[in-house]
Amino acid sequence: MRYILGIDIGGTNLVVGSVAEDGSALHALHSEPTQPERGAESVLERLMHLARQAMVDTVRIDPGAEIVGIGVGAPGPLDTKRGIVLLTPNLGWVNMPLLDKVHDALGLPTTLDNDANCAVLGEWWRGAARGCQHAIGFTIGTGIGGGLIFGGRLYRGASDCAGEFGHVTIDANGRRCNCGNYGCIEAYASGPAIARRAVEAIESGSESRLASYVNGDLGQVSAQTVYDAAHDGDELALEVVRDTAKYLGIGVANMINIFNPEVVVICGGVTLAGDRLFTPLRREVARRAFKPAVSVCRIVPGELIGSAGVYGAARSFLEQRGLVHA
Amino acid sequence: MRYILGIDIGGTNLVVGSVAEDGSALHALHSEPTQPERGAESVLERLMHLARQAMVDTVRIDPGAEIVGIGVGAPGPLDTKRGIVLLTPNLGWVNMPLLDKVHDALGLPTTLDNDANCAVLGEWWRGAARGCQHAIGFTIGTGIGGGLIFGGRLYRGASDCAGEFGHVTIDANGRRCNCGNYGCIEAYASGPAIARRAVEAIESGSESRLASYVNGDLGQVSAQTVYDAAHDGDELALEVVRDTAKYLGIGVANMINIFNPEVVVICGGVTLAGDRLFTPLRREVARRAFKPAVSVCRIVPGELIGSAGVYGAARSFLEQRGLVHA
Repeated sequence: MRYILGIDIGGTNLVVGSVAEDGSALHALHSEPTQPERGAESVLERLMHLARQAMVDTVRIDPGAEIVGIGVGAPGPLDTKRGIVLLTPNLGWVNMPLLDKVHDALGLPTTLDNDANCAVLGEWWRGAARGCQHAIGFTIGTGIGGGLIFGGRLYRGASDCAGEFGHVTIDANGRRCNCGNYGCIEAYASGPAIARRAVEAIESGSESRLASYVNGDLGQVSAQTVYDAAHDGDELALEVVRDTAKYLGIGVANMINIFNPEVVVICGGVTLAGDRLFTPLRREVARRAFKPAVSVCRIVPGELIGSAGVYGAARSFLEQRGLVHA
Repeated sequence: MRYILGIDIGGTNLVVGSVAEDGSALHALHSEPTQPERGAESVLERLMHLARQAMVDTVRIDPGAEIVGIGVGAPGPLDTKRGIVLLTPNLGWVNMPLLDKVHDALGLPTTLDNDANCAVLGEWWRGAARGCQHAIGFTIGTGIGGGLIFGGRLYRGASDCAGEFGHVTIDANGRRCNCGNYGCIEAYASGPAIARRAVEAIESGSESRLASYVNGDLGQVSAQTVYDAAHDGDELALEVVRDTAKYLGIGVANMINIFNPEVVVICGGVTLAGDRLFTPLRREVARRAFKPAVSVCRIVPGELIGSAGVYGAARSFLEQRGLVHA
């Protein structure tokens, strides 16, 4: 069996695994914290170690394995063709020739793609959007990204930068976003934005037990803390989750009115909130989008928790090398 | 030469013309006011008269002409496959079997498509988006619609209702829209919305000479009145046009961040405002969208004034009948 090594470089975790060419198996899934503060050389060194380990393990698991190439997913903006990471605030990388570095270290044909594209491509290939012609995916974490599948192919746009769903304006005069703009959905529904809205409410006097989850240090509140407190019934946390659902619902409704897709997949930690998120989200979508488009569209959490990016990086390799046909 | 009769049914005008199969010529362009208040039978009767006249004129102009089919563009929502106009508030039609009626009256193979799809398809085939792989079009009139071209093909979505750009939320808690929702771009930048914002400002005490354009009857102010007054230097009208540019700029920036297209075409009467609209619109887009996507994207007015829908209806016929290949 031929395999592609999928590499998913995130701001929080590095994930590596071997994906069978036909998508039927994922072996040797390895992961470790990115720790970008240790510098780019450290990240790359540990990543290469992880990759070699995964390659060895793959052959141990399937003695007939042949690893034919490497697909890398990284945060952008990228120059995909030249294999360069132009700028990644979360990693602190500028003009990093990532493709060459991976290729030189591992000696196999390598491709590079946007991490959000990879996650959505993975969910389309082997996850929640399997079998769909037209699918939209949101990736929600430190930032909000996205990917578009039309006619069973990843859509990349005129200059490889389609899918910046996080920077769709949903409130013309709204909150300031990290991108410098106002009212982007990322300023409301990314992980840090979720935490920030909760902390702001507490600082304005709202009652909440959130502080007790972080030893009183509100600077330590994360989206995860908010979900935990919501799970325990904290009223403010529940309200923040409901508002998040409303904002995401606006973003999803916009996409449904624009694209009329068969499925919208929501990927990322935010899906941990489960029905507490999805029930009000679907309600907001039904309120805002057109019925003939809503009625044909599933809105679902990603299925490939922790591995969508690896599957998608491998699939992107196959697509870029012309090894799959629609 | 083989021709397709293109029919564009608008709330204001009926337009008909014969388009050469290769798009190289448009003959016998005829138009008359729709006058929907005279009832559906009257509209259809006059439309069929116009169509027959165009067919006769086509053969008069090109004695070798063969008219092989009819493409109809109509406001939706439609059931394209069955050829039925499900509901058009502007015409007052419900479940109108338009395709059968046209086919029975004229005796030629007929297809039906959404009017906004047709306008954008026309601009892509023979107008401002000619030669592009990835194009987005806004149609701005009584409502706001849109169309998407990916890989040189019209994208229709999972159930033929992609392209509802007018109902993308740009202000989560904003103005109420005719669709029942809040903050849709249509509630800010459609023709009636432009007029309404001007009238509201006057009613709240803003100085303006707008009333003098309509014999003091503010109920008669239209978007056209606002453009005329802006042209004459009326401050309030200029402000309304600038705000319109801002709202449209948000809508266009959203599309650029999502799709990374080569061109965004703005169709409809709003383009009459010219640079007074496009200069601040492009400025707003540059402020809101990502530079690598903005830098590859032209934002231009439609070129086929009064005929985009006819060209596009003919092209849609060719596409639906499998007579063109990408």
